[in-house]
Amino acid sequence: MDGGQRHRVPLLTDAARRRADRARQIADLLRRQVMERHFDSGHLPLETALAREFGTSRNTIRDALDLIREEGLIDRCPGVGTTVAGEKYPHGLHRLLGLAETLREHGEVANEVRTMGLIRPPAAVSARLRLPAGEPVVYVERLRRLNGLPLSLDLTYLVRELGEPLFQADLTRNDIFVLLERIAGQPLGTAELTVEAVNADAHTAAVLDAARGAALLMVERLAHLSDGRPVDLEFIRFRGDRITMSGHLRRTGDAPASPGPAGPAGEEDR
Amino acid sequence: MDGGQRHRVPLLTDAARRRADRARQIADLLRRQVMERHFDSGHLPLETALAREFGTSRNTIRDALDLIREEGLIDRCPGVGTTVAGEKYPHGLHRLLGLAETLREHGEVANEVRTMGLIRPPAAVSARLRLPAGEPVVYVERLRRLNGLPLSLDLTYLVRELGEPLFQADLTRNDIFVLLERIAGQPLGTAELTVEAVNADAHTAAVLDAARGAALLMVERLAHLSDGRPVDLEFIRFRGDRITMSGHLRRTGDAPASPGPAGPAGEEDR
Repeated sequence: MDGGQRHRVPLLTDAARRRADRARQIADLLRRQVMERHFDSGHLPLETALAREFGTSRNTIRDALDLIREEGLIDRCPGVGTTVAGEKYPHGLHRLLGLAETLREHGEVANEVRTMGLIRPPAAVSARLRLPAGEPVVYVERLRRLNGLPLSLDLTYLVRELGEPLFQADLTRNDIFVLLERIAGQPLGTAELTVEAVNADAHTAAVLDAARGAALLMVERLAHLSDGRPVDLEFIRFRGDRITMSGHLRRTGDAPASPGPAGPAGEEDR
Repeated sequence: MDGGQRHRVPLLTDAARRRADRARQIADLLRRQVMERHFDSGHLPLETALAREFGTSRNTIRDALDLIREEGLIDRCPGVGTTVAGEKYPHGLHRLLGLAETLREHGEVANEVRTMGLIRPPAAVSARLRLPAGEPVVYVERLRRLNGLPLSLDLTYLVRELGEPLFQADLTRNDIFVLLERIAGQPLGTAELTVEAVNADAHTAAVLDAARGAALLMVERLAHLSDGRPVDLEFIRFRGDRITMSGHLRRTGDAPASPGPAGPAGEEDR
């Protein structure tokens, strides 16, 4: 663009837009700041200061704060102001990592094994694990907590010879990934995953100590040993207010990028 | 494992578990089958057939079907049975692609530009686009539809010299990514993204024609030109019932894997 074209396009004014649209726009920016612990003290600035920073009215700021309060990110209290409420934990889309590995710096992951046993899997499971029909698999259901707070409900199907030794293992403190690698005597290789957003049904909400209908990040992940054999099929429901997944994409080629010159340092596990 | 250890672990029976837990387990498998168009005719098998396949009671099957009906994936009608209702579209986590590029095979993406203009961005935007404070950016808000159905609401901040020429472009039919590359005369390089699940607030729900509280897949994406310069910051709310994101992870190293020997062929854009 040459300099002559500057200022041809007029500045957009607040007046031209609905307040709800402006509030959403500001909420997205504040959400990010809260998640990145931009507010060191845990206190957000006063409404008047935010209104100035975002060039909008206090009413719009109030609406924006209401939006992220509904997401459980902040609390608002007369006399106290606006404070950061919940913490969202980062789960990398960069590498195949177990939850305890990923969240090591954030606290202690403890797993409650709700169900564990051998099952004759439905065809849908056999096919994905490339097993003959009727071949039993080990099924494990775990409620996973970080620092005591429910984070995810994980349903896991494992090929039998790697799953059975887990009956003697400490599943409370260890990621299944780490145990599988020890049992298999080889590292895991790749995993395919899908990520969706679903509303929590009543029973799942109760298990996760969340409101009915709460947004969940639903992850399905099929992990392979490094020799290519699929061994671990998981269906994971993360509480949406406690987990953020992040990664990098590359425009060309199939393989996503490693952080390039543009990638902030140390983002690997963000 | 040697053969002698076989059958040491007893088969898990339905009786030992709550029906809600079994229903969730089956719902996860059915969800996947519906999404992968496993049921060619659009009709799911009868409850009795499903009960046989999953080795459970008809009541549990009914609960499982209720769960995925609540997600909008199936309809149940007396006399007609259970039919596939909505389609979920795959958005790759493999490559940085615009929506129309990604969903080309699924239909036509049309964009409604709700707002477009030059703004003086808040500090949170300037910092991410590495612009001096007060430097104007172009802000674009689009409602994106696939085959007429609302799919996402996208809030986009663009550096000025790439954003201003968009005022003369056809944003209705084109992805911004493609237009940016044409204007910049160079391809995009990498993007950092975060993925979260949030509940739709009342106004966003109305815009996306979804129920209030509906689960949304919220994506924040910062795209860089291939020279490493950040130029495009987006906040995207996808309807959770219409989009699935999928990709690959690798256990070792930072860069996620391209489909290895274990990856099904043609998964690139799944």
